[in-house]
Amino acid sequence: MDRNIQVSRLDRQAVEDQEVEIVERKGIGHPDSICDGVAESVSRALSQLYLDRVGKVLHYNTDETQLVAGRAAPAFGGGEVVEPVYILIVGRATKEYDGEQLPVDSTALAAARDYLAEAIPELEYGTDVVVDVKLGEGSGDLQDVFGEETQEVPMANDTSFGVGHAPLTETETIVREAERALNTTYHDDHPELGPDVKIMGKREGDRIDITVAAAMVDAYVDGLDEYDDAVASVREYVDDLAREYTDREVNVDVNTADDYDEGSVYLTVTGTSAEQGDDGSVGRGNRANGLITPNRPMSMEATSGKNPVNHIGKIYNLLSTRVAESVTEEVDGIRDLQVRLLSQIGRPIDEPHVADAQIVTEDGVTLSDIEADVVDIVDRELADVTDVTRSVIEGDVSTF
Amino acid sequence: MDRNIQVSRLDRQAVEDQEVEIVERKGIGHPDSICDGVAESVSRALSQLYLDRVGKVLHYNTDETQLVAGRAAPAFGGGEVVEPVYILIVGRATKEYDGEQLPVDSTALAAARDYLAEAIPELEYGTDVVVDVKLGEGSGDLQDVFGEETQEVPMANDTSFGVGHAPLTETETIVREAERALNTTYHDDHPELGPDVKIMGKREGDRIDITVAAAMVDAYVDGLDEYDDAVASVREYVDDLAREYTDREVNVDVNTADDYDEGSVYLTVTGTSAEQGDDGSVGRGNRANGLITPNRPMSMEATSGKNPVNHIGKIYNLLSTRVAESVTEEVDGIRDLQVRLLSQIGRPIDEPHVADAQIVTEDGVTLSDIEADVVDIVDRELADVTDVTRSVIEGDVSTF
Amino acid sequence: MDRNIQVSRLDRQAVEDQEVEIVERKGIGHPDSICDGVAESVSRALSQLYLDRVGKVLHYNTDETQLVAGRAAPAFGGGEVVEPVYILIVGRATKEYDGEQLPVDSTALAAARDYLAEAIPELEYGTDVVVDVKLGEGSGDLQDVFGEETQEVPMANDTSFGVGHAPLTETETIVREAERALNTTYHDDHPELGPDVKIMGKREGDRIDITVAAAMVDAYVDGLDEYDDAVASVREYVDDLAREYTDREVNVDVNTADDYDEGSVYLTVTGTSAEQGDDGSVGRGNRANGLITPNRPMSMEATSGKNPVNHIGKIYNLLSTRVAESVTEEVDGIRDLQVRLLSQIGRPIDEPHVADAQIVTEDGVTLSDIEADVVDIVDRELADVTDVTRSVIEGDVSTF
Amino acid sequence: MDRNIQVSRLDRQAVEDQEVEIVERKGIGHPDSICDGVAESVSRALSQLYLDRVGKVLHYNTDETQLVAGRAAPAFGGGEVVEPVYILIVGRATKEYDGEQLPVDSTALAAARDYLAEAIPELEYGTDVVVDVKLGEGSGDLQDVFGEETQEVPMANDTSFGVGHAPLTETETIVREAERALNTTYHDDHPELGPDVKIMGKREGDRIDITVAAAMVDAYVDGLDEYDDAVASVREYVDDLAREYTDREVNVDVNTADDYDEGSVYLTVTGTSAEQGDDGSVGRGNRANGLITPNRPMSMEATSGKNPVNHIGKIYNLLSTRVAESVTEEVDGIRDLQVRLLSQIGRPIDEPHVADAQIVTEDGVTLSDIEADVVDIVDRELADVTDVTRSVIEGDVSTF
Repeated sequence: MDRNIQVSRLDRQAVEDQEVEIVERKGIGHPDSICDGVAESVSRALSQLYLDRVGKVLHYNTDETQLVAGRAAPAFGGGEVVEPVYILIVGRATKEYDGEQLPVDSTALAAARDYLAEAIPELEYGTDVVVDVKLGEGSGDLQDVFGEETQEVPMANDTSFGVGHAPLTETETIVREAERALNTTYHDDHPELGPDVKIMGKREGDRIDITVAAAMVDAYVDGLDEYDDAVASVREYVDDLAREYTDREVNVDVNTADDYDEGSVYLTVTGTSAEQGDDGSVGRGNRANGLITPNRPMSMEATSGKNPVNHIGKIYNLLSTRVAESVTEEVDGIRDLQVRLLSQIGRPIDEPHVADAQIVTEDGVTLSDIEADVVDIVDRELADVTDVTRSVIEGDVSTF
Repeated sequence: MDRNIQVSRLDRQAVEDQEVEIVERKGIGHPDSICDGVAESVSRALSQLYLDRVGKVLHYNTDETQLVAGRAAPAFGGGEVVEPVYILIVGRATKEYDGEQLPVDSTALAAARDYLAEAIPELEYGTDVVVDVKLGEGSGDLQDVFGEETQEVPMANDTSFGVGHAPLTETETIVREAERALNTTYHDDHPELGPDVKIMGKREGDRIDITVAAAMVDAYVDGLDEYDDAVASVREYVDDLAREYTDREVNVDVNTADDYDEGSVYLTVTGTSAEQGDDGSVGRGNRANGLITPNRPMSMEATSGKNPVNHIGKIYNLLSTRVAESVTEEVDGIRDLQVRLLSQIGRPIDEPHVADAQIVTEDGVTLSDIEADVVDIVDRELADVTDVTRSVIEGDVSTF
Repeated sequence: MDRNIQVSRLDRQAVEDQEVEIVERKGIGHPDSICDGVAESVSRALSQLYLDRVGKVLHYNTDETQLVAGRAAPAFGGGEVVEPVYILIVGRATKEYDGEQLPVDSTALAAARDYLAEAIPELEYGTDVVVDVKLGEGSGDLQDVFGEETQEVPMANDTSFGVGHAPLTETETIVREAERALNTTYHDDHPELGPDVKIMGKREGDRIDITVAAAMVDAYVDGLDEYDDAVASVREYVDDLAREYTDREVNVDVNTADDYDEGSVYLTVTGTSAEQGDDGSVGRGNRANGLITPNRPMSMEATSGKNPVNHIGKIYNLLSTRVAESVTEEVDGIRDLQVRLLSQIGRPIDEPHVADAQIVTEDGVTLSDIEADVVDIVDRELADVTDVTRSVIEGDVSTF
Repeated sequence: MDRNIQVSRLDRQAVEDQEVEIVERKGIGHPDSICDGVAESVSRALSQLYLDRVGKVLHYNTDETQLVAGRAAPAFGGGEVVEPVYILIVGRATKEYDGEQLPVDSTALAAARDYLAEAIPELEYGTDVVVDVKLGEGSGDLQDVFGEETQEVPMANDTSFGVGHAPLTETETIVREAERALNTTYHDDHPELGPDVKIMGKREGDRIDITVAAAMVDAYVDGLDEYDDAVASVREYVDDLAREYTDREVNVDVNTADDYDEGSVYLTVTGTSAEQGDDGSVGRGNRANGLITPNRPMSMEATSGKNPVNHIGKIYNLLSTRVAESVTEEVDGIRDLQVRLLSQIGRPIDEPHVADAQIVTEDGVTLSDIEADVVDIVDRELADVTDVTRSVIEGDVSTF
């Protein structure tokens, strides 16, 4: 089998060595991330529904959730939402199979409800947020695609490409880990921190500036002093966390747009800016690896919500990241690695038009030292492409 | 004070004595009744919100809820909703007062959710039914209307009329009480009976035919035999109940459109036909006294959802019914009574343009025997008109 | 064939002879009438679509259009709509037949657009008014119902009743004809008069009060003086018209709620109150004969938008009116006539459960003089029941 | 004034010299481009409305239009749309200023209608496509932003960055010009070509493959032979056009997914795949320069629909492209240029945090030869930053 795997030198410096680096992550409570999360949870639920009912995943695509912001009146000690957030789940799904009606709309709504309850617990479903659904019928001839009986690798549904890279730079690592830690460990002890945490990292030479915008939840903050403490606590936590990942100079700012004299602070009822004026869409925020990285090539494809069986844009973005991670874990001497997978419509997805690993080696390592190992790993991961689908359906992999 | 109260002979036979009588009641789970119930609960919640926040009821009107039916796949033992019911709450409300934002949208949604949970418990909010809200701003000059400080009687907002009657005929009583009993006492022991119970009563001479259409809930019915038992049980229950109210011949039919051979029975997932194909609107079903009575004059006004402070169509429909009931309770010798209240825009609502009591007396009683008593009672009830508003806000009176 | 036609004395005075009479008509531009008109034009268009494509009318029902009011800023000389009116067409329709997709949504939208352009020409489609559509699928087993090949009379789809009456009283005639003339002849010369004309007639003894609420269109009215002239002109026109139909005392009021000192007048951008705060629904306004007549029994059934082939509530309301008109045209000596048709589910619609003509005769005429003639006419009209369907589809009969 | 302009060597090969290059352009009829176009035309219309009414642009943002695909039944000679496309315009806008209501909703709808009529003429507004609008109120304190009286440069509303590059490679040029020519000159003579033209260019070494997906409009194509001719004609046209821009080997494919034997061809009723199954959103397609260029850094920011006065993400993406173009036009010896502008929230937008020009020089040219000229041009363009705003409002610049 010819997988057309190519290994070459990456014709630029490793991002870690570039003079200026910018990295961003929109936390799970950001309006764009909410859309990504809803779309992906709807997708997972539909895959599961199809597997349960008919033993294979039928045609669907739900990568277009739209969020229209609400209005809120936050207040220390507890305010209220006055106009609900509106979320419209958009896409296509197969609604009937072999004469049986499949509850795709209800399943989509239930998935959105469960996801929101988990991700934005302060946002009450049905009153603070109204979720509606418009799922058209999929085309009849695209319907049978994945299942236990099917042993074959699906064909690519499009000409598309995915790009992944590894290892993460220090700045990338800090931005990603800070958001994750804030929204899990830190939040457990600090309910005043809402899930809409947006982190921007900028590195100039050896100085890293981390800017955090953190929505505070009013019910847990009794006044400006408490608010100020909450902000300081986040700053300190992120500062400590950053130092675990770098020896460079680190500076952390939190909620810099606050103006205490004007009483203008980042206080919310629900922990997300979607409650007041910030709309959101799928695919407008983090890329498949959880980051926005202007220093690196990125795919425009929305990964969240797409059918994980045959939507090649989704699969190749996730797979190229996985390939890059595997290579850098298993092969020494790589300072920066970029993997691109380009599909060709109609070809099996384990046979990309081109699979292209571009490498910046560590000093003292040449490409020829490692080329064979890299090719082997890329080949192995491509052969295992359907495992990406499986992981997505089981929710083992994040798409934003 | 001149209330222009007129008492006259009703120039027809008492309905009880007419040859043919038709009466209908749509139960609380009927799509039209769902809309009435949602609209009225939203109205109550907004009145309460305004009283709580600003001490008086501000301008609003929510008498236009629209229900778009869903799709369901019922099955013995438990089926599922495949496309949710869609309910759109429509109306006007004051969203800001004295610089304070008032959460009218969220309040409306919460009221709808709570009402639906109570009335149609099998219909899961947010997945089996999606509720959305479009409340426009009310006009600024209509905003201050009712409150504790206000001692004055409001002015009529329109030229409109209300009509009430009493006492209920036997057929009317049976139709109304049967639905109520089925949806309370009977349902407590028989969860298989859904709230969408529609009862039609027809009397020809001394024979009363009661036709019941009763939505059964599939999760509580394991097969056709059980279904048949459930139908028989409803028939027997209504038959027994009817005999408490009449000595006439009674015949009860339940779910006559069923066709067991075809497997076509009235089985639902949620207990309402709104789940499959039956749309609904406010004001299309029961009148303010809970019945549809083609033998009697009826108002076209939707009562549910209207502002109970100054919406004269609502107030006069409820008040005329209350007046008719009081008169027949307190004055002997009345076989049939019809009360009409006609407002004049801009006049205090306790001074109707005309308040008109038309009476069929019992044999041996003349109008002049009772006229003075009737006038007194009508006058007293008119004087107490704001108590109707209070009862509505407190939920003590049903509007459909 | 047994049509069970019964003729009896109507046990009350003719409405013309009652002391107090109330009649109302909501003009074609009233929000409720807009909904009726849209629903009925959608219904006609669907019937026509089905006849064109498959030679017979398939299952559909579109009697639930909902209008949510917009916001407008009228101004002498020409203001503007600031928030569009929103109209949601709701119902069921058969979307596929014999493998062919039928464009029911697009057809419904086109029908609504064309109707609105005709009825409310100042309301610009797509910007002043947004029309959306939610048509669910009809049930499969209800689909074949009417067509050229079908020689048979359809079966009633429900137990329902219709009621009609004739002749119209003077007050009824004035109310109906005034609205019609204002919206046609008068409007042709007076573009400042919008289609939202609401007329209330009240007769006490021999005095008739006609109250007209007439929306003026701001682009054709340059100031308060012109407005005042426009109001006076309507008053004079209706006054003249009324005198053609009665010798009783007539008093006409137009736009009585105006307050010139406050600058509060009934000025609109589009000629309908739907532009600012007045919502609307199907079936909440005029009955099938174009009037709201509290002195007479009325059906609660919405006539507009229903399938005219087998929806018995629609057919019997239209047919009972037609029967009443035919009888009073052809038979002398009838002062008031009320026709009731009661269906029985599953029976052919030309064989009602009961067809009941109740008559108040002129002085000197007895029921037995005319009974045979009446029965003949009722029988003839029932035999021709499918002509009602045909007239509705061809748009020859108004439903509101 | 310190603009912090930095010029440096771009640490990679010019894209023109890289081994593999991928470029894509979604034509104006692609569902994502439709959203971009609607959002941007709404934005322009709102800017113009504010300037006309209050002399300055008030706060708004309309970068979230969502398109839900319809259903169509295309057929040679002319098919039909059966379910309309649904477009929801989402965003914030200032609806009232100094007591005056501003018709933002109606203006947005009119702009969308006019844009669609121009861009997708076969898609009939109001029947083939339903457009609705949800514009929330903007925050009060963000409202005064741009106008004739304002001499000052606005402050950045966010920390964001823009990236532009020049000159275009041959492949980029071909992809962009082919779509433009097909949708203008070619379309004028070939109405059968719909506006949904998607072009993918791939260059490997000196071979350029251009893949065109071109939606044909059924009304202008009578059968498969004509269709085949239409496809061949597009292929030939693009082939000729490509050769104007390159001496490399060129290969053009059109509608490669067609299967004539199966009768599966790219035939549409309206010329866009939005009619059948393809949803769309703002910001998911072309970047600000009209291309998707995975070989180059791209901004994730949606440019279309954003307020052009102070939304720095929009301004800097457009400006960085303009700067890059000016520099390469005026300065010789540049093989590839990448300009990045990074804003700092709260600073004047003509004083970026960093303005960074990275250059690959032609052989024989050194950075120091041209550095001073480059700095001058960047400085001049930054000084003229508000001209970007003006151009956007006047529609002189494309955003997608």
